[in-house]
Amino acid sequence: MTLSEALPKVLDRIDADLDKSLERLFAFIRLQSISTDPAFAGQCKATAEHVAKELKELGFDPKVRPTKGHPIVTATSPGGPGPRVLFYGHYDVQPVDPLNLWTTPPFEPRIEELPGGRKVIVGRGAADDKGQIMTFVEACRAFKAITGALPLPITMMIEGEEECGSANLFSFVRDNADEFKLDLGLVCDTGMWDRTTPAITTSLRGMVYEEVTLRCADRDLHSGLFGGAAANPIRILARIIAAIHDDNGRITIPDFYEGVAELPADIKADLKALDLRPEDFLGQVGLKVSAGEKDRMLIEQISTRPACDVNGIIGGYTGEGAKTVIAAQASAKISFRLVGDQNPDKIRDAFRSFVKERLPADCEVTFAGHSGSPALQLPYDNPSLAKARAALAEEWGKKAVTIGSGGSIPIVGDFKRVLGMDSLLVGFGLDDDRIHSPNEKYDLTSFHKGIRSWARILASLAN
Amino acid sequence: MTLSEALPKVLDRIDADLDKSLERLFAFIRLQSISTDPAFAGQCKATAEHVAKELKELGFDPKVRPTKGHPIVTATSPGGPGPRVLFYGHYDVQPVDPLNLWTTPPFEPRIEELPGGRKVIVGRGAADDKGQIMTFVEACRAFKAITGALPLPITMMIEGEEECGSANLFSFVRDNADEFKLDLGLVCDTGMWDRTTPAITTSLRGMVYEEVTLRCADRDLHSGLFGGAAANPIRILARIIAAIHDDNGRITIPDFYEGVAELPADIKADLKALDLRPEDFLGQVGLKVSAGEKDRMLIEQISTRPACDVNGIIGGYTGEGAKTVIAAQASAKISFRLVGDQNPDKIRDAFRSFVKERLPADCEVTFAGHSGSPALQLPYDNPSLAKARAALAEEWGKKAVTIGSGGSIPIVGDFKRVLGMDSLLVGFGLDDDRIHSPNEKYDLTSFHKGIRSWARILASLAN
Repeated sequence: MTLSEALPKVLDRIDADLDKSLERLFAFIRLQSISTDPAFAGQCKATAEHVAKELKELGFDPKVRPTKGHPIVTATSPGGPGPRVLFYGHYDVQPVDPLNLWTTPPFEPRIEELPGGRKVIVGRGAADDKGQIMTFVEACRAFKAITGALPLPITMMIEGEEECGSANLFSFVRDNADEFKLDLGLVCDTGMWDRTTPAITTSLRGMVYEEVTLRCADRDLHSGLFGGAAANPIRILARIIAAIHDDNGRITIPDFYEGVAELPADIKADLKALDLRPEDFLGQVGLKVSAGEKDRMLIEQISTRPACDVNGIIGGYTGEGAKTVIAAQASAKISFRLVGDQNPDKIRDAFRSFVKERLPADCEVTFAGHSGSPALQLPYDNPSLAKARAALAEEWGKKAVTIGSGGSIPIVGDFKRVLGMDSLLVGFGLDDDRIHSPNEKYDLTSFHKGIRSWARILASLAN
Repeated sequence: MTLSEALPKVLDRIDADLDKSLERLFAFIRLQSISTDPAFAGQCKATAEHVAKELKELGFDPKVRPTKGHPIVTATSPGGPGPRVLFYGHYDVQPVDPLNLWTTPPFEPRIEELPGGRKVIVGRGAADDKGQIMTFVEACRAFKAITGALPLPITMMIEGEEECGSANLFSFVRDNADEFKLDLGLVCDTGMWDRTTPAITTSLRGMVYEEVTLRCADRDLHSGLFGGAAANPIRILARIIAAIHDDNGRITIPDFYEGVAELPADIKADLKALDLRPEDFLGQVGLKVSAGEKDRMLIEQISTRPACDVNGIIGGYTGEGAKTVIAAQASAKISFRLVGDQNPDKIRDAFRSFVKERLPADCEVTFAGHSGSPALQLPYDNPSLAKARAALAEEWGKKAVTIGSGGSIPIVGDFKRVLGMDSLLVGFGLDDDRIHSPNEKYDLTSFHKGIRSWARILASLAN
């Protein structure tokens, strides 16, 4: 039986098996794997063992591997000739407080029918990331059931500390690089464009985060006595911040845009066709107008273009009422979102030079660098991308869009840098899933068609 | 006996009486008139009565007038034909903590001889304002002793709440305006230029204090998701603050300098001759370079020119480490020091317009106005100024400089606005007097020559 002969049977099997798939997902959700709370360490371990047991049933050779924190489950199964893929997900979930805002207990999953007939799976982890993981696991199960084997060799890496920073995963990947240096990463922890439009997240913005502290006088001064003559660090900081962007919203730091490429025309046309409007995207948070680079579409501004934001600022008197002080110091937290090949180290240096060049006499600066990671970009000509897009289009009857994520998924960066491996980020989350919030849900459609999507993608990649 | 015949005798009497003058000052200092601490209310009342008793001995008709707080002592004595003067001072003192930093108990005054032979009176209130008040009282006493009368009609107003904001004095002056509407105010609560150079404070800067709060999104946003598109109130605030000054340190708010006159050439030459150098004035607080208007002398920047300072700013995440937030709001406290005829209301309005004109879409502003008072300027052609300068020059053998104070003495504003009366601010404090601090002192020279100075000034004004 060839793969193309098998696939329709696999998809039928998925449809027929949906109730059982749901039962397995529910069993997974019932495990209270809250990673940030030490009281749940036992539950996290039990959840890792549960995952291992599930994978063993599918013919994997699971290992529950201890770390300084919660264990990581790894498992490999042979399959068709290749490519060899590494699937990443996380079994841990967010805390559930405030508990009183949950309609039903968070670890008692259930199906809820929304007005209009839309069905959703409600429970902590329903979407993030237990439901998403299970779309992949159930696709594997269906393949095994129909063909007796996986269409390609698969290694699983299911960690338990994503919700608290993946502290132990990075060294684990580094220490075991040979084991995980495969051909392609697969990650199911992202979202669709909307309920009917599948998406592949092809870029994740990188980050440079800097804290800048300016010091002028050696003490706070009285503005009556010194005002007009003494250097004021708040004013100096404001001038520096104001100078970072020009009137068109473009960042003025020299060479900042080095490594930022224009999108391929077809990708740009696809993004344009999505017609993401400020009143829709920004309207949800009380804004109306895009405040970024004037010559860029909103969707570019938030995903495929770099950005700079001041995340915090403080200086002088900030209590009630008036105090006539000239502060001795002021500081700001300033972060840059990077794209393409922008080099975080170079950008950090360029930013620091930019600040130093603007310091007047009597003003000293100190910098604290909080984090730095380059952007991740799945090359648009990576063959797996076209295959996955085609597979998704077949399942959803609609072109799959490639989108950029404004945020970062740090481990994907390590897959690239440490393992030399690109990752395909396909997920079925929706904007209204309430991940990290009470009444988290995952659409039944996301789950069902998510399983079918992975079956199609696996078949497609194996071709 | 004419005044000019009497004056040498009065001065001799002051010299001869110095020890007794000191005893009277010490008795005044021993009274623990700490106005901010309710535990000392009885001492404050006793001090007011002490002042009244002293004035009665000099032929005044003192009254201890109750207020909602500590009483105000008023007293009038006839004298020569005029002008009628109102002398203002305050009998209350600052708290004494930290007590352990006092070398000797704060209310046990003593003479200390510093290395080099300089003698100082040590004790709480030695300078601020008991010593300064007594320079005037002792000058009056010497006149009475020699001539049997004061050289001009004098009304005294000695309050007990200056160190806690003069809360009850303003309404007192308003309610009794007819009584105090005289020809000239005299205040002894300021300083000399240096130990050998007498000074008259001819200008006090006014103030407009504004709190600006900008709001953009209706909640804090994740900068990964929204960065590049969402309006950031910290960035907007920084741009507005940066726009307030041009590259020459000049304030760009339209019509801001309306009412700011150039100094008369002779006054400017006097100020220039003082040669106040940044390394001296700013060096004491760790600064080296004047950061104000580039075409102005330092002494102008801090006293006779208006200024704008940001006194505080806050927005976004200001804790430890990194948080990728775009704040919903940011705010700053911004104050203006005013001079000449600058109108606080107009400046407040102009500033608010300046801010509003710079608000992009999706950004709302609210203002809180904390205080506003115009500058005070003794007209340089007020005849009493020339007379007092001449008198001081005779006493000190050195030209008396006219200086501006960067801060404000609010009651002097009310003398002008409510009573329509200019005030002559003459004082003998020195920069190292440690007023408000442990081991407050007043130079014996300040006290002795201060008494002599007032005798000369009274004679001069009466001419």
